[in-house]
Amino acid sequence: MTDHPAGRRGFVQERVVSFADCDPARIAYTGRLADFALEAIEAFWSDVLDGESWFEFNLDHGLGTPFVKMEMEFSAPVTPRCKLSLHVEPAALGSSSIAFRIEGFQERRSCFVGRFVCVFISIESFEKIPVPGWIREKLERRFEIPKPAP
Amino acid sequence: MTDHPAGRRGFVQERVVSFADCDPARIAYTGRLADFALEAIEAFWSDVLDGESWFEFNLDHGLGTPFVKMEMEFSAPVTPRCKLSLHVEPAALGSSSIAFRIEGFQERRSCFVGRFVCVFISIESFEKIPVPGWIREKLERRFEIPKPAP
Amino acid sequence: MTDHPAGRRGFVQERVVSFADCDPARIAYTGRLADFALEAIEAFWSDVLDGESWFEFNLDHGLGTPFVKMEMEFSAPVTPRCKLSLHVEPAALGSSSIAFRIEGFQERRSCFVGRFVCVFISIESFEKIPVPGWIREKLERRFEIPKPAP
Amino acid sequence: MTDHPAGRRGFVQERVVSFADCDPARIAYTGRLADFALEAIEAFWSDVLDGESWFEFNLDHGLGTPFVKMEMEFSAPVTPRCKLSLHVEPAALGSSSIAFRIEGFQERRSCFVGRFVCVFISIESFEKIPVPGWIREKLERRFEIPKPAP
Repeated sequence: MTDHPAGRRGFVQERVVSFADCDPARIAYTGRLADFALEAIEAFWSDVLDGESWFEFNLDHGLGTPFVKMEMEFSAPVTPRCKLSLHVEPAALGSSSIAFRIEGFQERRSCFVGRFVCVFISIESFEKIPVPGWIREKLERRFEIPKPAP
Repeated sequence: MTDHPAGRRGFVQERVVSFADCDPARIAYTGRLADFALEAIEAFWSDVLDGESWFEFNLDHGLGTPFVKMEMEFSAPVTPRCKLSLHVEPAALGSSSIAFRIEGFQERRSCFVGRFVCVFISIESFEKIPVPGWIREKLERRFEIPKPAP
Repeated sequence: MTDHPAGRRGFVQERVVSFADCDPARIAYTGRLADFALEAIEAFWSDVLDGESWFEFNLDHGLGTPFVKMEMEFSAPVTPRCKLSLHVEPAALGSSSIAFRIEGFQERRSCFVGRFVCVFISIESFEKIPVPGWIREKLERRFEIPKPAP
Repeated sequence: MTDHPAGRRGFVQERVVSFADCDPARIAYTGRLADFALEAIEAFWSDVLDGESWFEFNLDHGLGTPFVKMEMEFSAPVTPRCKLSLHVEPAALGSSSIAFRIEGFQERRSCFVGRFVCVFISIESFEKIPVPGWIREKLERRFEIPKPAP
């Protein structure tokens, strides 16, 4: 895991595409690409929040960030013959939600683009809550994040 | 797997939500919901095409149907305490593509809605091809499918 | 899911082998076969305990049944072209453990045999506990289970 | 991925344990531990064979290495709170088979030990073949591997 070349914009995760990730068509299975995007978001949090991510949100902070929306467009198959780079960028930070833009590359060729939206909730009440201050602060210190359209 | 109550409209798959499908938040993991939708589409083909689906497309018919788009909106968590019903409906049939609408229910409560688009390709050339006649025929015999917006 | 032909001996789960379960060798991936065996054990509990299984053990009964051992021998590849039957049999019931024998068949051909051992623990203490009476009773009412070798 | 401290003995893969790898008991799901072991073996090959592994075996060399046996013993739960180190060691090299010993550690505590056996086959005939010379050579150049008991 390394910083994005344009570090103010995003976070990059590199991963192997394994045999198990691929299907009889001999490319990565569509469902695995969704998993890859999700794992990259999990790694994004861990990178931004000094090791804390979904598990700690749930277990230590009484916090959940369920996905309310995911969209992916696939433009090229993902092969196990080379690594996959996942670029994660916080695309919008609302009062109680965050949107991510994710793009997957193999050898500089874009394979897919995704947009994922999460809301922050209290695990107790399962109700929406404002983005916690300690998270907002670390996000804004590191990234320039557009506000969502009102 | 049973026919949809409104059989002209779609296909319904019922499935157990297993322990492995759930995460430490104790609900089905988002990535698994994408897998469930994909498996329901695979089962849709098998039901419509008398047992043939993605594997046979690839191995026996030189045919691929890669996804070019997936969209999901999540409105309620999916729990392992009850079964999940996946309603699959062909939403648009173009000259070389098909769109599916998928809705997941638990005890008649809608948990998520998805839209998935596939294109038909030749595995040899990896180029788009028209929807094969034998597939189009079986689809149209069973469902009333809107044409996609031009 | 149906009862085993020899109902006093075990439980049988039938499942589809999906495109996602298969790898570029065009047979079910080894790791998926382990998952299938585990899911069959989960279904065994649900069948024996009137709908309760690992999730309810953990969430409602303060009970865990972690695996301490798994062994699988593979004798034939598993293909997505036909269904897979998983025969689950309680092979030994100790004071605080249970062993399962699992065999996977496709069209009456044995594909793999597994042996899985779980211990009963309290989730609070993470210490071994005796097999709870309500579970032992339902197991013994239905199956003739050997005691483990002392 | 780094060399084992005792480089003549094995190969070490480090991995994150993700939210998706964990179940409602809030530890890594048993089936995922089997997957981790398998992925570590895949990474072992890639490390030993300069980037080639199962996919290249199948697609480029007409070679398969199906598992005939897997055994795992679990001694401590695997938590997402720290990384998992997988130590892979070729434990026996026969005329047409290889056995691996795998041990999983978190913060120097052993969590599980596994033994996996693969046979080399021709994909054409699905029959056993001798370990290909180019593979045997690279294995023996790097590791001291016991012969299996006759």
